Amino acid sequence: MFKTNNTKKLSLGIVGGGPGSWIGHVHRISSRFDNHYEIVAGVFSRNVKISNKFGNSIGISADRCYLNYKEMAEKESKREDGIDVVAIMTPPSSHQIIAEKFISKNINIISDKPFAGNLEQAKKLFKSIKKNKKIKYALTHNYSAYPMVRQAKILVEKGKIGKVKMINVEYVQDWSDGSSINARNAKKKLKWKLNKKIVGSSAVLNEIGSHAYHLAIYISGLKGKNVLADIKQISPKIKMDDNAQVMINFSNGAKGMFWTNVMARGGVYGLRIRVFGDKGSLEWVQNDPGYLKLNPSKGAVKLLERGFHNAGFSKNFSRIKFGHPEGYLDAFANIYKEFAVSLKSKTKKRDFFPNEDEGFETAKFIDACKLSSKSKKWVKIK
Amino acid sequence: MFKTNNTKKLSLGIVGGGPGSWIGHVHRISSRFDNHYEIVAGVFSRNVKISNKFGNSIGISADRCYLNYKEMAEKESKREDGIDVVAIMTPPSSHQIIAEKFISKNINIISDKPFAGNLEQAKKLFKSIKKNKKIKYALTHNYSAYPMVRQAKILVEKGKIGKVKMINVEYVQDWSDGSSINARNAKKKLKWKLNKKIVGSSAVLNEIGSHAYHLAIYISGLKGKNVLADIKQISPKIKMDDNAQVMINFSNGAKGMFWTNVMARGGVYGLRIRVFGDKGSLEWVQNDPGYLKLNPSKGAVKLLERGFHNAGFSKNFSRIKFGHPEGYLDAFANIYKEFAVSLKSKTKKRDFFPNEDEGFETAKFIDACKLSSKSKKWVKIK
Amino acid sequence: MFKTNNTKKLSLGIVGGGPGSWIGHVHRISSRFDNHYEIVAGVFSRNVKISNKFGNSIGISADRCYLNYKEMAEKESKREDGIDVVAIMTPPSSHQIIAEKFISKNINIISDKPFAGNLEQAKKLFKSIKKNKKIKYALTHNYSAYPMVRQAKILVEKGKIGKVKMINVEYVQDWSDGSSINARNAKKKLKWKLNKKIVGSSAVLNEIGSHAYHLAIYISGLKGKNVLADIKQISPKIKMDDNAQVMINFSNGAKGMFWTNVMARGGVYGLRIRVFGDKGSLEWVQNDPGYLKLNPSKGAVKLLERGFHNAGFSKNFSRIKFGHPEGYLDAFANIYKEFAVSLKSKTKKRDFFPNEDEGFETAKFIDACKLSSKSKKWVKIK
Amino acid sequence: MFKTNNTKKLSLGIVGGGPGSWIGHVHRISSRFDNHYEIVAGVFSRNVKISNKFGNSIGISADRCYLNYKEMAEKESKREDGIDVVAIMTPPSSHQIIAEKFISKNINIISDKPFAGNLEQAKKLFKSIKKNKKIKYALTHNYSAYPMVRQAKILVEKGKIGKVKMINVEYVQDWSDGSSINARNAKKKLKWKLNKKIVGSSAVLNEIGSHAYHLAIYISGLKGKNVLADIKQISPKIKMDDNAQVMINFSNGAKGMFWTNVMARGGVYGLRIRVFGDKGSLEWVQNDPGYLKLNPSKGAVKLLERGFHNAGFSKNFSRIKFGHPEGYLDAFANIYKEFAVSLKSKTKKRDFFPNEDEGFETAKFIDACKLSSKSKKWVKIK
Repeated sequence: MFKTNNTKKLSLGIVGGGPGSWIGHVHRISSRFDNHYEIVAGVFSRNVKISNKFGNSIGISADRCYLNYKEMAEKESKREDGIDVVAIMTPPSSHQIIAEKFISKNINIISDKPFAGNLEQAKKLFKSIKKNKKIKYALTHNYSAYPMVRQAKILVEKGKIGKVKMINVEYVQDWSDGSSINARNAKKKLKWKLNKKIVGSSAVLNEIGSHAYHLAIYISGLKGKNVLADIKQISPKIKMDDNAQVMINFSNGAKGMFWTNVMARGGVYGLRIRVFGDKGSLEWVQNDPGYLKLNPSKGAVKLLERGFHNAGFSKNFSRIKFGHPEGYLDAFANIYKEFAVSLKSKTKKRDFFPNEDEGFETAKFIDACKLSSKSKKWVKIK
Repeated sequence: MFKTNNTKKLSLGIVGGGPGSWIGHVHRISSRFDNHYEIVAGVFSRNVKISNKFGNSIGISADRCYLNYKEMAEKESKREDGIDVVAIMTPPSSHQIIAEKFISKNINIISDKPFAGNLEQAKKLFKSIKKNKKIKYALTHNYSAYPMVRQAKILVEKGKIGKVKMINVEYVQDWSDGSSINARNAKKKLKWKLNKKIVGSSAVLNEIGSHAYHLAIYISGLKGKNVLADIKQISPKIKMDDNAQVMINFSNGAKGMFWTNVMARGGVYGLRIRVFGDKGSLEWVQNDPGYLKLNPSKGAVKLLERGFHNAGFSKNFSRIKFGHPEGYLDAFANIYKEFAVSLKSKTKKRDFFPNEDEGFETAKFIDACKLSSKSKKWVKIK
Repeated sequence: MFKTNNTKKLSLGIVGGGPGSWIGHVHRISSRFDNHYEIVAGVFSRNVKISNKFGNSIGISADRCYLNYKEMAEKESKREDGIDVVAIMTPPSSHQIIAEKFISKNINIISDKPFAGNLEQAKKLFKSIKKNKKIKYALTHNYSAYPMVRQAKILVEKGKIGKVKMINVEYVQDWSDGSSINARNAKKKLKWKLNKKIVGSSAVLNEIGSHAYHLAIYISGLKGKNVLADIKQISPKIKMDDNAQVMINFSNGAKGMFWTNVMARGGVYGLRIRVFGDKGSLEWVQNDPGYLKLNPSKGAVKLLERGFHNAGFSKNFSRIKFGHPEGYLDAFANIYKEFAVSLKSKTKKRDFFPNEDEGFETAKFIDACKLSSKSKKWVKIK
Repeated sequence: MFKTNNTKKLSLGIVGGGPGSWIGHVHRISSRFDNHYEIVAGVFSRNVKISNKFGNSIGISADRCYLNYKEMAEKESKREDGIDVVAIMTPPSSHQIIAEKFISKNINIISDKPFAGNLEQAKKLFKSIKKNKKIKYALTHNYSAYPMVRQAKILVEKGKIGKVKMINVEYVQDWSDGSSINARNAKKKLKWKLNKKIVGSSAVLNEIGSHAYHLAIYISGLKGKNVLADIKQISPKIKMDDNAQVMINFSNGAKGMFWTNVMARGGVYGLRIRVFGDKGSLEWVQNDPGYLKLNPSKGAVKLLERGFHNAGFSKNFSRIKFGHPEGYLDAFANIYKEFAVSLKSKTKKRDFFPNEDEGFETAKFIDACKLSSKSKKWVKIK
């Protein structure tokens, strides 16, 4: 379980996530967690001075702090000891363009979500990844890497709740006062989140909604068939769509309710999913991530706990003993670990980390939602 | 607070709620709770023998066990000591017809929900009640009588969460195996719930959804403006619409998400409402009814507890000390108590129990939902 | 399940519980709950005027409002239609004296806790009850009548957690500002609670601790063997012992931790019990009374819910459907109902309500605690 | 907040925590978390081959994999680039002996708990640390590094709950089936935990109880004055004391209840502390570590959440945004981070990590408990 890495580390390059970025910090801690990566190259800011200074501060040698991602892709791909993996943590609308460059140089990619800034980009990126057989792609839909989310996925696969009939998923946050722990940067951060050219087609769906939809398809194994969406700005303060409510019909006929909001006042912060089958149901909430509620049709409600003998599968996705809580970073680090293991292993094992298939699926969902919200009609997810 | 009634009891007649009825039992306990009523007349079954036997068993004299509600209305209205109030607890489609008869005899009414079996009936009933100035009408949307629901209503009125921007309400139940505590009667009960002529226009909306919508308008003080609904049968076992998901636009521009399902496998049973304003939000769940979560935009989340000095208003709707749980019956009995107090009092005080206005509003909502589900379009609540 | 009483009501007399009494109100509602009793006689205050006025206000005829309990016992026992049961809800130190009078008149007793004001009284009362074969005695240790406490008791009996090895029980309250819902009367109430002549030997143990200890022996079926107790005043404001912590060795060798405090600042109000066996453990808390957590040694934690098919036994002690909360009054009323059923039934069935055996046991525990707290040594419970 | 380390890394040597050790894994992840350390030397097993192989697998050069801790201390202290810090994660009874060796070489120490195997060792170690002004010492009582535990400590200091009057702390675990996630090693692990020569004076108190007592004195700022303890074996399966219940009188007159058990069947795993003052109370549980309940005497219960604006202090001890859970590793890593910052900083700032003072205090507590359990009397903590 708690094996320390005992093979050579992978060389990791980074694009984005500079000094003011929270998610950059998260990616770097996650890459260090299990000793699988060494950060050796990067470009952290459009401002070269800031980028170099930051790169230096985290131990990257001057010659591998690059002017921009293109230079980095070019030069690293020519080095004998060039990077094995690039981690992309720039704003959404640039994900595809940057990724394509590294794909063209046969460099593996671990990208922050969403998959792309819009459907058009997503189509291109998906095609490029599929064409290049030499690389692997991982997408940090990190919530899917919580052990009890994995347990849920496997329980659904094993038929423990029967045929899925209904999914209710929501991801609600409060950005109203920039109430991240990094309050000083809040305004600046929101700024780019308000710029469609940067954040992509819908802030609330790209930033948060993509996670919620991904979680639904990840656990259920279903895909959405069509949607009826209502995307609106509720908060009076800033110009952005901050509330999206969606009805979904899934591929197998199941019904779905989806809600995401980023201006839910009161410090609310909640990702919650319930999956109802014809033999029982499952509930998971991020606030209490070490537990999964399994309600069978007959008999007692079961409270499955990470790592305990009642939740066998979850052990494989966990580092510490049951009873001690794991959190956001532990789950995020799972994706880094699993991607490394997948890249290093010679035998084919099942990959649990999210990839381009799920990324593309989510991009299609978001696009259909936007069309539906305009037309006020059910729109097919193509 | 815990005053025992010290005035004359009201005479109560009952229509429905015979030996096999759970809700009949609930109504009778509720009427006894605070010593405000004496049950003196009734008709409990279409089968006269059963009805008389049952009436006798609960202490009603033979001459006041009636053949049917018409006879009861006629004869009781002629007695000097005739009933002050009739309690109606028959299936939905008969509520209006029975109520009208007693209205015509100037007898006060306390009726089980929903207000009526369909919109047409609701319109007639609403008009009849409004026309007769001699009587009062109470509707047992009992969830609105939980002390902390009242607290929520008053906090919204006082502007504690600012302008309401979003309401999320759900009422989910599991009838899949007739899993009431009265399992023997489950099939029989479901039988009438499956019959549209008896249950009214939509089982899931009339039976359960009406409560959820009522709760939303009761707490928020808003009315729905238009809806987009999807009402479907999810469970394969029995013929009825068992799932309704609705998007609501409220009168003040607020958005609403509404979900009700009665075939949610796994013994799930939950009524939950969250109201988000521009200054904070509120959350209440029936499973933990003595608490109300108040999330202000600034400062700590407050966990208000029934009866404690942090939740002043709630004391007025409560019988027992904070720390000791109250339940479903305590809330249900509040409506009986408040109706009695209202009927007896000479000075005009605010009535908190639900009445014909809210009943009519709920009927209009259900009707709009049905139309929308057919047309797949937004439909106005008229 | 939800049978309305269909036999003759029992005649109930009341001693205590007058206009300012919260517990009096609780007893009266509980007696009405299931239609098994009619309150026909009483003495509600030492002040005759107040007593008569109050009796009249709740419908008792003037000739059955008595000067004192002695007169009531004498006169009622001579009436053809005299009371079947007397309910005693006076302060602790008078419980034995009053009960003895009614025992001598062959009148059944339902008494508020504690059993008696001190061990000497308890011994006398126990002996008197046992001697009189014509009467039955019930003690309102109401927490033991919650359905899920009953479920716990039966699960222990059935060996579901194996041999009991450890019990942790606590009952913590905050009386610091007289924070009952009846704030006006708080000071007056605390007054008698501070008077040892009235409240009996230890306020915190008699008033609250007796409930906690009763719960432990009720669920586990064990008795305490010896105790090491530390009883102290923690709050600076009023003169009374407000904190008692006790180590208990049980009859079967199990260990026990016991804590009660009535000046726990912050509106805390919690009764909680955990019973650990060699095959699993159980947890129940009054704040969430409809659930019982069963942790087996192997397999998933089970969350048993009142009334649901996963908690079969609990149905027998419940009135309403699973999913709808029951509370303090529902449990309190169970004791009234069960006592009536026991008195009326001709066939011998198991009685679940607490009786003189448990009352006496609790009195012995409290006495041993006091001795131990003085001597600072382990003291045997005799 | 989420600053990446931008100064030189500290060189870290490790004693213990080899291939089969869970806590070794925890220490290594924690040291990597914030990029403050580089592991450069170590001895991981008494078996040299295993030790070298393991050292090599985590990237330590062959010449710095040592035969034993003595050799390591000698040689590293002579190197120019010798280790700045040694991390000790061997069984308890060796903590003092190993630490003394490194103290004599002026090497800073971060040690796993408990401080020492018994009081005698603790006295020696405490003296040695205090004598050497060139080094700093940190003790990984990791629970004290959860942000909301820090918040609790600061709220007590600020007088938010007034004078502390009562502390209730418990740490309950289930080792009954070796139910760590590392089941294969469970028996072997328990083996040394059963050997008093290795684990020290009391398995349950040294291993788990030390954490609970530390938490109590860390948050409250108090010290225990005397104790009355009952330490016993409850589980029939293995020879060890597995249950300890203790009454504590604190220095300021406050009362304490303390319970620890490692054979609590049913997968129970809980660390919980409640501190009651004369103005309010606090509650924290490790299962929900991101929240702190603050119950003031007046007004609403406050649910403080890590990182949110309602819990300002906690931000300083946290890496990720409020709403996303942190866990055991995040807290453990705080101690590593704070120790590094303390060692590197030139200006004197308050250190929050636990040190020798608290370690010594805890050793004195454990010793007094053992004496009391034998004598069955109150014993002074000297």
